[in-house]
Amino acid sequence: MGVIYSREQISEIIENTDPLDIINSIEKGFIAYSNGKVVVPPVGEMIFKAPPGESHIKYGYIIGDDHYVIKIASGFYENHTLGIPTNSGLVLVFSQKTGQLTGILLDEGDLTNVRTAAAGAVVARVMAPEKVNCIGIFGAGFQGRMQLEFLKSVVDCKDVIVWGVNREELDDYQKVMALQGFRVQTTMDAGQVAENCNLIVTATPSQKPLLKADQILAGTHITAMGSDTSEKQELDSQILGLADIVVSDSIDQSQQRGEIFHARNAGILDDSKVVELGILIEDTTLQRTSDKQITIADLTGVAVQDIQISKMITRHHSD
Amino acid sequence: MGVIYSREQISEIIENTDPLDIINSIEKGFIAYSNGKVVVPPVGEMIFKAPPGESHIKYGYIIGDDHYVIKIASGFYENHTLGIPTNSGLVLVFSQKTGQLTGILLDEGDLTNVRTAAAGAVVARVMAPEKVNCIGIFGAGFQGRMQLEFLKSVVDCKDVIVWGVNREELDDYQKVMALQGFRVQTTMDAGQVAENCNLIVTATPSQKPLLKADQILAGTHITAMGSDTSEKQELDSQILGLADIVVSDSIDQSQQRGEIFHARNAGILDDSKVVELGILIEDTTLQRTSDKQITIADLTGVAVQDIQISKMITRHHSD
Repeated sequence: MGVIYSREQISEIIENTDPLDIINSIEKGFIAYSNGKVVVPPVGEMIFKAPPGESHIKYGYIIGDDHYVIKIASGFYENHTLGIPTNSGLVLVFSQKTGQLTGILLDEGDLTNVRTAAAGAVVARVMAPEKVNCIGIFGAGFQGRMQLEFLKSVVDCKDVIVWGVNREELDDYQKVMALQGFRVQTTMDAGQVAENCNLIVTATPSQKPLLKADQILAGTHITAMGSDTSEKQELDSQILGLADIVVSDSIDQSQQRGEIFHARNAGILDDSKVVELGILIEDTTLQRTSDKQITIADLTGVAVQDIQISKMITRHHSD
Repeated sequence: MGVIYSREQISEIIENTDPLDIINSIEKGFIAYSNGKVVVPPVGEMIFKAPPGESHIKYGYIIGDDHYVIKIASGFYENHTLGIPTNSGLVLVFSQKTGQLTGILLDEGDLTNVRTAAAGAVVARVMAPEKVNCIGIFGAGFQGRMQLEFLKSVVDCKDVIVWGVNREELDDYQKVMALQGFRVQTTMDAGQVAENCNLIVTATPSQKPLLKADQILAGTHITAMGSDTSEKQELDSQILGLADIVVSDSIDQSQQRGEIFHARNAGILDDSKVVELGILIEDTTLQRTSDKQITIADLTGVAVQDIQISKMITRHHSD
């Protein structure tokens, strides 16, 4: 009962899967979510004091789907003193027809990175300007790389400017992504990205805006990926004020976190302007109508992404 | 990361463990619980409609302990049409020091049976009259057997009357428990149990009282095990009214379910009379003072039992 997938096996399955399949599956998830087909109960939480740590249980399902999913993720902030990673986690997939365990995914949180990167591609496919001149990436870390890897399947552009705060990390980024066919320039100047790129992805843990409103060129699309708490912020809220289209992966979550949360709090953004991603994908009348429009997507991460990516790992296994 | 225990391996570990170790561990859990040392967040729940099913996530930990535990249990009510069991489940044990997964216990709910049976023995050890003449068991099913198996370690009495509703099941019970050295009489008449037994355990899914107040002899202790929902009831509430001592495994849970819930609703039982099990165990002044007293324990099942039994399976594994 229940196939066990090691971290290595999961990596291998992801590597051998067409990224477009993953992107399509995550897109389907966003559509189901915005159509009220996804049940996600409140997150379970345990907080520990000595040593300081926390464990979260996220779970849910698409109504009528074959499976339901429970994801357990922990962060223990003194683990580095023991030489072990701060974060760990696994995902359980169950049959929605029998309750039987389908798979135990010992992914250590890797799948969260994959589903986050795939969401960037879902957004770019539906929101980026028709002709992307240059891709701008904020954040030279692991997620910054993965964003670019997934964009490859949906955006026909190999020119990239990556912004970061660490010279060495930037150099590594350039080298690694060059192997994937990208021409990467590195910078520590956010303005340089804004001046040259009309598709920008921010994937940093920043708590103060990296981009200012007066830097943004007409026709630019920005996907803000990093701000998933109420403290984090990557964009000047004025950018959301001047944008023609503002999209949230979850209007519910945007009440409490992310760029939209900050812009609403600052009185800059009107609720009526915000469209949910799953709605935008299906209703083409809500999408970009010219290559002059500025568009923003604020992604805080929704559980249906975990559901979709986890099912992709176990999909060849019959219950 | 994380040792996987099959259902068979778990059975083997339980069989090779001294029942007294299990009973002591469960007792320790009740004491921790009543002393406010156990953190148990609200149960997570998913309800499915087609086919009808449900999944519950129960989780928690003892403050300062080495581990925390997440238990997932499902019931899918049409599984029998597919020839598979209605219920399934597993337990995950994590280090409370690092968040790392210690063990995956594919127990299919078996550990719930063990911890429930061990609780019966915890109660009998502290609440039964000094001299038990005859043990009465209501319910000839699996839990009815396990209750007796665990009582063996704490009660010096081999005479048993078992009550049931099915002749064949009663005969099987008699045969199987005879192999364990018990002299078992069977009956379908509840009065026969009440007249002869001064230690009674009820382990049935009954929704109407099996025992009436006027049947209970002085000196009897009754552990009511079966009623774990607001619908189920095994004892006439008048019994709780006339009892000298009434114990609940969880005063919190007794607000919503079990025998105490019914007796309170009927206005028969005063809150001040109810003592929590973990308190009674530690405070000998609250315990039975004569062999004439009638005592009742109402067990609805608490998460700390799951925590304790799960840790027993993984205890030989170092994180």
